[in-house]
Amino acid sequence: MPELRKDPVIGRWVIISTERARRPDQFNVKSEDTSPEKPCPFCEGAESQTPPEVYAVRPRNTPANAPGWDLRVVPSIAPFLRVEGELDRRGKGLYDMMNGVGAHEMIVETNQHIANMADLSSDQIAKVLKCYSDRIIDLEKDQRFKYACIFKNYGKDAGGSQIKHSRSQLIATPVTPKRIKEELTGSKQYYDYHERCVFCDVIRQEIATKDRVVLDLDGFVAISPFAARFPFEIWILPKKHCCDFTCQDSESLKNLGKVMKIVLSKLKKGLNDPPYNYVIHTAPFRREKIGYWKTLDQDFHWHIEIMPRLTRVAGFEWGTGFYICPLSPEEGAKFLRGVEA
Amino acid sequence: MPELRKDPVIGRWVIISTERARRPDQFNVKSEDTSPEKPCPFCEGAESQTPPEVYAVRPRNTPANAPGWDLRVVPSIAPFLRVEGELDRRGKGLYDMMNGVGAHEMIVETNQHIANMADLSSDQIAKVLKCYSDRIIDLEKDQRFKYACIFKNYGKDAGGSQIKHSRSQLIATPVTPKRIKEELTGSKQYYDYHERCVFCDVIRQEIATKDRVVLDLDGFVAISPFAARFPFEIWILPKKHCCDFTCQDSESLKNLGKVMKIVLSKLKKGLNDPPYNYVIHTAPFRREKIGYWKTLDQDFHWHIEIMPRLTRVAGFEWGTGFYICPLSPEEGAKFLRGVEA
Repeated sequence: MPELRKDPVIGRWVIISTERARRPDQFNVKSEDTSPEKPCPFCEGAESQTPPEVYAVRPRNTPANAPGWDLRVVPSIAPFLRVEGELDRRGKGLYDMMNGVGAHEMIVETNQHIANMADLSSDQIAKVLKCYSDRIIDLEKDQRFKYACIFKNYGKDAGGSQIKHSRSQLIATPVTPKRIKEELTGSKQYYDYHERCVFCDVIRQEIATKDRVVLDLDGFVAISPFAARFPFEIWILPKKHCCDFTCQDSESLKNLGKVMKIVLSKLKKGLNDPPYNYVIHTAPFRREKIGYWKTLDQDFHWHIEIMPRLTRVAGFEWGTGFYICPLSPEEGAKFLRGVEA
Repeated sequence: MPELRKDPVIGRWVIISTERARRPDQFNVKSEDTSPEKPCPFCEGAESQTPPEVYAVRPRNTPANAPGWDLRVVPSIAPFLRVEGELDRRGKGLYDMMNGVGAHEMIVETNQHIANMADLSSDQIAKVLKCYSDRIIDLEKDQRFKYACIFKNYGKDAGGSQIKHSRSQLIATPVTPKRIKEELTGSKQYYDYHERCVFCDVIRQEIATKDRVVLDLDGFVAISPFAARFPFEIWILPKKHCCDFTCQDSESLKNLGKVMKIVLSKLKKGLNDPPYNYVIHTAPFRREKIGYWKTLDQDFHWHIEIMPRLTRVAGFEWGTGFYICPLSPEEGAKFLRGVEA
């Protein structure tokens, strides 16, 4: 019998399908991108091919935009949003619009031509995480922006580009995105009723039942969520309550680097290097000031959502916001627990 | 300068990108599905290969599940939801779930092995639309269901199957899907403020400005929405206000058949037979009785959303619910107006 499951935060229902179920190893399909690679503009020595860096980890004696760096952040060469200009909210008849003001940055995670973050060292991943945090803190100073979304598109089916050099992206927006608002609202409703953080409750229950736990290490837990939308979807949560990703100390980021390395390696080895996206879910900027409720520090809990892209989202999902997942998260988690990372 | 635009119904923001913009003819990419076809279980003569029909358009003297039909509805051979059983809502610790009770039907739109609905006659499309209406009315009698979603997945990138025989799907669910709830809530808010239907206002403004109109014919208008999520996204709306798809008379369905034929042919010819999804958005079942507000008949407006699948949805969209559309709906509509159907 298929099951309908409800996400406890945003109330999204998911069908965990059994009739169309596949075994975990049947998802093992290599993404078929065989297009020849062009010279990489993100490798060490090609600094002139990107816009000037806005952030870098490099020795003090090396000049900006020259070799010697370990990690680099550059504005996107084809930004979705433009950093220049004033916000100009306006109407057009009944419609609302504003200028596409925002920031769009590429975080180049290594000077080596390595495609998958899973193949970076855990220390290098920790540097990337520190960079995320630093960029968010920097962009928060810009009063025009309300949110910074950090995400990764790896592989063609996940929207990744043909240039196979490991990087992530940051987009800062002048509005709080709809999905984030839903999460904030959902977790506040839970908090108002229970006076507990819904994510803390999820962590407690998951650790107690163990079925959906992929990894429990050094203060972080990686689970396949109860109402997973995708096969092998994984959320990584800090066990210690915190609403804001930028509040992690260096010890914590180091541990998270280790956890990310293991989880991404399990996906790579167990599922034949699948395409994936991940997104950091964290609190919006200046939450005290822009009208967010006073309890947000208590009721929201930052986390990372990792979505392998092994199935295609079709008309039913688009039309209804109702996902069909052909593998139960219990089976997915069990399979991934068994993969040596 | 890119633009941020807000959907007037559900409040979803969209980035209309200019830096990454492509010309309309640059989207013209043929879906690369070249896998060999298996014998088709949906063709006339293969009736024994599907579950028994639940609906058919066939001459009176032909028996069920035998040749001679014009259109057929069969339960899905691999249903996402099962029609048997009682609803069993229950908790599991903090999580909510229920049995996967529902209906999942395949609407086989023709007895010929034709892949794209665009290649059916407009009269045949009208029969398909009448069938949608009849199936929704029938399933509404089942007290366990709250909503019926009718949709189509055409082509591999739209989640379509390898069997290239034109069909649509119906899924009836025991909960009202999240996306539909958002639409109902958004249009009610607009109605409460303006005492007018937001969709009627959209139609009026679109017909007046003409920029985003693809077709205006026989009581229906096809527009590319102001805050389009996808290049060449098209909504077809009845100009006469009505919340419920099943209230269309046969004249109206005949006209809609004509409009669908033209719009789908424009997509096929102008964009080299692209993959697409469409979804019918209509009012939920027994709206007076299941706690929906009394004004729903006035504030909601049924319509069809057609989404060509020419771009990939990536991490940013998943994480934020914020879409990036690399073609403005004005350019998309202009291009499609120019395509002979």
